[in-house]
Amino acid sequence: MKNPFFKNYGPFKVHDLINEINDFENKNISNNLIEDIKDLVSAESNHLTFFHSKKYHLQALNTKASYCLTLNNLKKYLPKKCQPICVENVLLSLSKITAKFYPDSINDDFDSSVKDIQEINFGVKVKFGKNVLVGENVKFGKNCFIGHNTIIEKNVRFGSNCSIGSNVIIRNTIIEDNVSILDGCVIGKKGFGFFPNNKKNLRYPHIGIVYIGENSEIGSGTTIDRGSMSNTIIGKNTFLDNQIHIAHNNKIGDNCIIAGQVGFAGSSVIGDNVIIGGQAGVSGHLKIGNNVHIGGGSGVIKDIPDNTKVMGYPSKNLKQFLKNSK
Amino acid sequence: MKNPFFKNYGPFKVHDLINEINDFENKNISNNLIEDIKDLVSAESNHLTFFHSKKYHLQALNTKASYCLTLNNLKKYLPKKCQPICVENVLLSLSKITAKFYPDSINDDFDSSVKDIQEINFGVKVKFGKNVLVGENVKFGKNCFIGHNTIIEKNVRFGSNCSIGSNVIIRNTIIEDNVSILDGCVIGKKGFGFFPNNKKNLRYPHIGIVYIGENSEIGSGTTIDRGSMSNTIIGKNTFLDNQIHIAHNNKIGDNCIIAGQVGFAGSSVIGDNVIIGGQAGVSGHLKIGNNVHIGGGSGVIKDIPDNTKVMGYPSKNLKQFLKNSK
Amino acid sequence: MKNPFFKNYGPFKVHDLINEINDFENKNISNNLIEDIKDLVSAESNHLTFFHSKKYHLQALNTKASYCLTLNNLKKYLPKKCQPICVENVLLSLSKITAKFYPDSINDDFDSSVKDIQEINFGVKVKFGKNVLVGENVKFGKNCFIGHNTIIEKNVRFGSNCSIGSNVIIRNTIIEDNVSILDGCVIGKKGFGFFPNNKKNLRYPHIGIVYIGENSEIGSGTTIDRGSMSNTIIGKNTFLDNQIHIAHNNKIGDNCIIAGQVGFAGSSVIGDNVIIGGQAGVSGHLKIGNNVHIGGGSGVIKDIPDNTKVMGYPSKNLKQFLKNSK
Repeated sequence: MKNPFFKNYGPFKVHDLINEINDFENKNISNNLIEDIKDLVSAESNHLTFFHSKKYHLQALNTKASYCLTLNNLKKYLPKKCQPICVENVLLSLSKITAKFYPDSINDDFDSSVKDIQEINFGVKVKFGKNVLVGENVKFGKNCFIGHNTIIEKNVRFGSNCSIGSNVIIRNTIIEDNVSILDGCVIGKKGFGFFPNNKKNLRYPHIGIVYIGENSEIGSGTTIDRGSMSNTIIGKNTFLDNQIHIAHNNKIGDNCIIAGQVGFAGSSVIGDNVIIGGQAGVSGHLKIGNNVHIGGGSGVIKDIPDNTKVMGYPSKNLKQFLKNSK
Repeated sequence: MKNPFFKNYGPFKVHDLINEINDFENKNISNNLIEDIKDLVSAESNHLTFFHSKKYHLQALNTKASYCLTLNNLKKYLPKKCQPICVENVLLSLSKITAKFYPDSINDDFDSSVKDIQEINFGVKVKFGKNVLVGENVKFGKNCFIGHNTIIEKNVRFGSNCSIGSNVIIRNTIIEDNVSILDGCVIGKKGFGFFPNNKKNLRYPHIGIVYIGENSEIGSGTTIDRGSMSNTIIGKNTFLDNQIHIAHNNKIGDNCIIAGQVGFAGSSVIGDNVIIGGQAGVSGHLKIGNNVHIGGGSGVIKDIPDNTKVMGYPSKNLKQFLKNSK
Repeated sequence: MKNPFFKNYGPFKVHDLINEINDFENKNISNNLIEDIKDLVSAESNHLTFFHSKKYHLQALNTKASYCLTLNNLKKYLPKKCQPICVENVLLSLSKITAKFYPDSINDDFDSSVKDIQEINFGVKVKFGKNVLVGENVKFGKNCFIGHNTIIEKNVRFGSNCSIGSNVIIRNTIIEDNVSILDGCVIGKKGFGFFPNNKKNLRYPHIGIVYIGENSEIGSGTTIDRGSMSNTIIGKNTFLDNQIHIAHNNKIGDNCIIAGQVGFAGSSVIGDNVIIGGQAGVSGHLKIGNNVHIGGGSGVIKDIPDNTKVMGYPSKNLKQFLKNSK
């Protein structure tokens, strides 16, 4: 999904981008215009890309990008037409350059562009509560309900028949038809992402969005952070209970049922028809298969194949767990 | 406790109710007027009841209801004067018929009946913050405090000397004297209840309320869902810390102390004088005795007798837990 | 840090203070004026102090206080110039007398002194959202952002360049420069502290504040309670994710990274550079060293020395945990 929300402030000359990176030592790099920053696979010739782990060497071999942030010992995998820009920390440099292209993706101050709803005409029937605020670049489908004191900040698109509760805050989010979001949710803020530094941590940009598929429900007090380089996704007809936390870049499938106070650490992919009991936690960067059942209170720290039931901390096959706990 | 809040749209003719159930195959059922839908024990002759598990066969034998939603293999337990209406899924059919009697119990869109508080005269001394909204059928005892931006939606009764924080949302709730509810709570919304369906889950009605006994305290950011067929109850002088989630139909006793981030999965009964440490979880449909102590972080998945101390995941007797963890 | 916020209603005559304590039996106590109530070490001759455990007998020997709430079997440790006031429950009596000196520290009703922000001139550039309320004794550094519907109750001081989200509630808090507080946080309310009583629990006073060091970030939906006798502290450059609960009197060091849904039970001291994974819990009154890593979902129930990695429930050395879980 192409991000429709963050303004690209490019193009920039390569040398101007290189000036953003403090730890830089590179010579003889040409100085063409760069339009955007993309991953190895989706980059085109007018883009800068990044390559930080040997795991991606096949994608590196075939990238179409003209420039690549990388490490000295990885540059040999790049094709000749892609000039390496060697740095000490690829992700840190990527972060700095992304911030130059998309400065609006870092600043998560409150959206001061919002207006009181009486001032705005949306052209479709929307039922607003009292004291609703709506920012720039917001679109509503027909027959939506937006509760009292709710703040729809900039960059939000609603399908039809959505029911949004009161005291909700949303930004940078696409919401499909028939979605319910209950009271007090915070959706679309930047995630918990930064490079630790002893004096002052450096936040990295979040240019992803939150996407919520049709017929889904989000329980009261739930927080869903938008993605950093990719998006945070909730599938179709997936129901989330109260006080759930979904960190940046998680992708949750269709028809999932997730009980109260569950937490996802970030960048995991959850299949379809997954059922998760209350207070379970899912670590980062995992792949949870289709039709998986995760028992309440479980701590999931490794991938789970399709059609598996697990429980425990760390989670085990359910039969094993029940046997052990006797 | 009779529910004072949801309007009963009945009576209905039996044949009209039967038309609500898609999987229906029944012949020769009389077509009398039905006033309400009740459980086996409380139903009277002008009511419809339901019977879905052999566990309740003694109650079935003695029901006074004239009609009963049930399974083909259970109808033999019903008395002669009670006509069986055999269905494939009793609870699903019950849900559809309940929705016909109480349609307002499904729709949890924000309450658009609320009015700005300056417009309303309550006849007793209530101290309101700024931007307070109050819905229909709300009553206050004397000397209550209602904080800024708080939304008292329809169907709420307060005793005297209640202190409600700011950014709180309450509906369908009875609150006795001297209750404190801290900032940002959401109380009385429908619970996390639905029949899963691959295209679009079917929410079931929540005709219960939330009841909070006198002298109790509810910590900031806590969510308490109202009951589905019964009520969600917090006893007298029971103190809840911050960020607790209490799902539908839980009944919590008097003088309990429940620390932060504890979660209850639904329909459990907790005794008096129970102490629960932070982040513990209690599964659904359990019976926790009086004077029970549950250690922080425990996962309770079976009943606990009176006067017992437990800890662990799954929780064990405390001595056993301490021995095992060495 | 001296508490700048709660008004001291003293001085009081000793006999008037003694009348506050129901279980009192003391004779021949002089009736001087008492200015304040302090711990054994910081008390001066015009103060009342308290001594409830033999653990503190060395401090008792050297106290400068003229009066001391204590137990009959501990009074022998006090110097001659300090008159013992013997009670059955030192902390309960302390609570009652503290409430007499600082009555504003118990009442946590919403702050009705707040005013709509248009009415107030702060003398520095502050960017306010819509519907912001600000109470008495609030100071802003330059270039702060305060989001929509946010309520800054009485007794809050901001440094420069602070970014406060929307729907936030803050009271009794000192916030240094460059602090971000995301949406929906509740900061500075009284903690979960009371003496259980079968009819009506007795809340104890919270005369501490919340202190948040420079460059720190507090995630959405987080709750931080103020201290009871001491303060609740978040160090410099410490980042908290969403839905964290920090109970009263916790002191968290500098440069810590704390992931989502973590909970702290109260009165623990956490070192610098500590990393805590999501959903972990830390029991009360613990000492966690510098550079400690606590794995996600862990339950910490004892002190952890510096430079240690732990995981598990109850938490163990990480290597031990990984070995056990195979």
